[in-house]
Amino acid sequence: MAEKFKGIIPPMITPILSNSKLDYDGVGKIVNHLIEGGVNGIFILGTTGESISLSYESRRNLIKETATRIEGRVPLLVGITDTSIEESLNLASLAYESGAEAVVATPPFYFHLGQEELFEYYWDLANQTKLPLFLYNMPSMTKISMSVETAVRLSQHPNIIGLKDSSANTVYFQALKYSINRKDFSLFVGPEEIMAETVLMGGSGGVTGGANLFPKLYVKMYEAALAHDFDRIKIFQKQILEIATLLYTVGKYNSSYLKGVKGAASLLGLCENQMASPLKPFLPKEMEKISTNLEGIMANLNKLPL
Amino acid sequence: MAEKFKGIIPPMITPILSNSKLDYDGVGKIVNHLIEGGVNGIFILGTTGESISLSYESRRNLIKETATRIEGRVPLLVGITDTSIEESLNLASLAYESGAEAVVATPPFYFHLGQEELFEYYWDLANQTKLPLFLYNMPSMTKISMSVETAVRLSQHPNIIGLKDSSANTVYFQALKYSINRKDFSLFVGPEEIMAETVLMGGSGGVTGGANLFPKLYVKMYEAALAHDFDRIKIFQKQILEIATLLYTVGKYNSSYLKGVKGAASLLGLCENQMASPLKPFLPKEMEKISTNLEGIMANLNKLPL
Amino acid sequence: MAEKFKGIIPPMITPILSNSKLDYDGVGKIVNHLIEGGVNGIFILGTTGESISLSYESRRNLIKETATRIEGRVPLLVGITDTSIEESLNLASLAYESGAEAVVATPPFYFHLGQEELFEYYWDLANQTKLPLFLYNMPSMTKISMSVETAVRLSQHPNIIGLKDSSANTVYFQALKYSINRKDFSLFVGPEEIMAETVLMGGSGGVTGGANLFPKLYVKMYEAALAHDFDRIKIFQKQILEIATLLYTVGKYNSSYLKGVKGAASLLGLCENQMASPLKPFLPKEMEKISTNLEGIMANLNKLPL
Amino acid sequence: MAEKFKGIIPPMITPILSNSKLDYDGVGKIVNHLIEGGVNGIFILGTTGESISLSYESRRNLIKETATRIEGRVPLLVGITDTSIEESLNLASLAYESGAEAVVATPPFYFHLGQEELFEYYWDLANQTKLPLFLYNMPSMTKISMSVETAVRLSQHPNIIGLKDSSANTVYFQALKYSINRKDFSLFVGPEEIMAETVLMGGSGGVTGGANLFPKLYVKMYEAALAHDFDRIKIFQKQILEIATLLYTVGKYNSSYLKGVKGAASLLGLCENQMASPLKPFLPKEMEKISTNLEGIMANLNKLPL
Repeated sequence: MAEKFKGIIPPMITPILSNSKLDYDGVGKIVNHLIEGGVNGIFILGTTGESISLSYESRRNLIKETATRIEGRVPLLVGITDTSIEESLNLASLAYESGAEAVVATPPFYFHLGQEELFEYYWDLANQTKLPLFLYNMPSMTKISMSVETAVRLSQHPNIIGLKDSSANTVYFQALKYSINRKDFSLFVGPEEIMAETVLMGGSGGVTGGANLFPKLYVKMYEAALAHDFDRIKIFQKQILEIATLLYTVGKYNSSYLKGVKGAASLLGLCENQMASPLKPFLPKEMEKISTNLEGIMANLNKLPL
Repeated sequence: MAEKFKGIIPPMITPILSNSKLDYDGVGKIVNHLIEGGVNGIFILGTTGESISLSYESRRNLIKETATRIEGRVPLLVGITDTSIEESLNLASLAYESGAEAVVATPPFYFHLGQEELFEYYWDLANQTKLPLFLYNMPSMTKISMSVETAVRLSQHPNIIGLKDSSANTVYFQALKYSINRKDFSLFVGPEEIMAETVLMGGSGGVTGGANLFPKLYVKMYEAALAHDFDRIKIFQKQILEIATLLYTVGKYNSSYLKGVKGAASLLGLCENQMASPLKPFLPKEMEKISTNLEGIMANLNKLPL
Repeated sequence: MAEKFKGIIPPMITPILSNSKLDYDGVGKIVNHLIEGGVNGIFILGTTGESISLSYESRRNLIKETATRIEGRVPLLVGITDTSIEESLNLASLAYESGAEAVVATPPFYFHLGQEELFEYYWDLANQTKLPLFLYNMPSMTKISMSVETAVRLSQHPNIIGLKDSSANTVYFQALKYSINRKDFSLFVGPEEIMAETVLMGGSGGVTGGANLFPKLYVKMYEAALAHDFDRIKIFQKQILEIATLLYTVGKYNSSYLKGVKGAASLLGLCENQMASPLKPFLPKEMEKISTNLEGIMANLNKLPL
Repeated sequence: MAEKFKGIIPPMITPILSNSKLDYDGVGKIVNHLIEGGVNGIFILGTTGESISLSYESRRNLIKETATRIEGRVPLLVGITDTSIEESLNLASLAYESGAEAVVATPPFYFHLGQEELFEYYWDLANQTKLPLFLYNMPSMTKISMSVETAVRLSQHPNIIGLKDSSANTVYFQALKYSINRKDFSLFVGPEEIMAETVLMGGSGGVTGGANLFPKLYVKMYEAALAHDFDRIKIFQKQILEIATLLYTVGKYNSSYLKGVKGAASLLGLCENQMASPLKPFLPKEMEKISTNLEGIMANLNKLPL
């Protein structure tokens, strides 16, 4: 399992049309772009994919279309995060039928759960999904951080095979690494700025949003970290931070990162610059800035030893 | 409008069976219990109704069944809170077709929105619902508190007719009261412990969870507050606080209130003691405590001048 | 005790000079202004008094000077909030020697305490102060909200005689009122916007910042609330909310309230417009707005039946 | 400067006696223990030193005594964190007179500051201290996280020479590393669990609490990280996480870390097991656990290639 799930697994953006419907062609373009960039898997219906803003119909269409487009070239992971476990299980069934390899879920995110309730929720969920399950720690959105103790207990469920941590707190990540004694348990990190250091310290890889745009850069960084090649790590890290700085902080929205990834992807011809309510794409003036910054980044990227 | 929406509008609990399906008979029992208690309306699919834990099918069934059971005796308000605006609009359409009088929505609660994004979301939503819309401020669950300024701007939309505030912050409530200059705009408060004081200071009434259990008590408290009858206010307030203390704090869960209302309702024969995942009903030992406490409360209630 | 501590006890602003030293004349002016306005006591070294920004020398000077200027006309309450209990006790001793009637303390506010640690801290403190002690719940600043249970346990200490709640959460306030069964225990509220309603529901009065500026208004509101005179309550409440809106929200700082009170007080001739680091007074442009708004407020106030 | 401030600079615990007075002998013992362990500097009056719980007299005594005991063997850094800038400056003067090399300050931590106010505070402070100043980001205690932008602006002050980040958020740390373009600016990390990875990615070292107990382990880990010696990093990291797990999580207090370090230090004979109010040392039963765990750790340590 841990062999299958490692490396760069981008949280795929969801391409949508101006009428809020799924952009089927966009799905094909993005899938090919990612696979050509060397990614080790594709994760749909995560935070970056605006999953919980999409209608169920769109989510179902996305699962089927992505599976079709991937054609088995890389593993497909499907987000089934929802406030209703019944709807999560419906999505999990469809993921299974569509040929996905795993499902991924944050805690339910409306009520304030305790750790015991969180444990029971995930245990119940893992009992009922045919596909293996990744835990997804995302405290800024879900209002709960899975404790190390809860994660350890959950790691003993045979159908729970890994955890994606988007907390940005690497003390927590190191504590998970130390405490979970299952060799075949994958620990992925969300934020791309710390992917290299978590891989250096034993992490399995990154679910890095920027890999939607420049998959090769993140794949090469993963490889450099695995190889302890600090010359390349240093060069790539500077580039990754530059991307974060120039594309994800425009406009100072809480969702500048999401707007930036979608906006830049649209400039790269991967999709339209449309977002699902309640988020809106960048304004024209902000897109000008993204456009200028993107040009600079691409000029730089061309000089890198990728 | 403000004439129609005032007084006690309980956030109805959702009765479910052990197989997690909707308990149709329970709906009928609860609806009659509430209307016989004198309530001024019924609000389904709110926080107390565990709305966002229910499958869409259950939500749709609940809307139809409640409308049928009410038979037009009191206004029906339907919660359409969701992270996907398309799903909210689907629920709003069904509410309209079923004869409801208004819809109610919290902000979408996964992403961190800014006030401008919150404003645009509600404005868009109000443009697209046939029924009038109540805003629902619930910062502890949604991670955002609607600013007074945003509420004032939204109150200028002709299809937005009121706000339910569950923040428990009465400085905020008073600021809304002062700042919103529309006579026909209703301001409801959530927590029952402060319903009397907000009505004394000009509020429209309460969406009080305890009214699921003892609707008459809350209706009489509302009337006492309207009449400035402090003798009765004092007696009823003591009773209301006793209910909150004895039924809502057992077990010290984050959701002790929800477990307490559902558990007590089951003891009153209104529904089964079942909750939708991720919440679970009280354990048998906790239910013993609820049972004992409930007996004491009912003995007391019988002595009150209701 | 409860007879002594009730009504309006303003959290006195601390007048300071441009060299950050205490403005002794200012102390005299403010004390007289407050007493002439009919206040029931004066509370120095609270949040509004910028206590924890002052040097110990300034705090000691303020205690002595205020005591001297009051000349026994009203009770003096002294804030002894500090992160070091030894320094709190030093201030408490000086308060006692200077003739104060009570001391007031928030929890220590750097470390994250648990409820048991909070209980022990206050119990220890109350054991060591010669003057009676008021608890001061101020969660937005101290990162901890005293639980109702902790407050109830602390209310059993003979030297703890009351609590000031600045949480703005009146569910909490009502729970305290219900749960603390000591007749001679005073419950004060901080925010002036909700002073009337808490008094209507049994509160002891308000530690209201605006009373620095217009003590008579808040005193009359307290009396109206006691008398259940809703005609006057309605008029005064509108005025109080207008003050909050026009003076406390300029500039949208986290500390706009503090800057507004100090700025308006300086325009009333009570002190210089100086604040203790890290806070700074309003900028000239912001002060123009305060000045205009203050004129409007004073014109209105003259028409009120005070 | 950056040459002077790098490596392991432990946040020294403050030894106190049962009468809460400073334990002068303890200071000497701890200072020698640290220097013999090879540390690159000593930081007193930080969070681990319980600074803000100490009386001013104790803080002053500690500065003088530590300087005396160090005898110039390593640089002394002095925490001047306070809510009053005047008191911070008093401590800074004494630090200068005592021969310290730098001062360190968190933001003032009672009021909620904005980023501009935070910038102005630090700029003012740096203008007035004779010793160079380290910024200290500690959002969990101070309620404010210094933005990258604010840190960049502050790094342009000639008297601000570094930053200690205790946020545990390495996305933030990497953003600082990328954005601050001053070669002689030191970036230290607080939590020992992530010291290695931040040094691998370019950080200057660690202000690691566990180094009070086992200075050599952290010094050797720093050296291994500098040398990219992953065999040793892996061994030491496991040991460091074991220390954190066995000593810092006993009792599940918010301050278990602080109680654990002090408790273990007392078992090592470095000080008494006394803490400054409001914190209390571990209970006897908890100390038994610390004792057993400590024995295991020391047995392990003896086998390491230190």
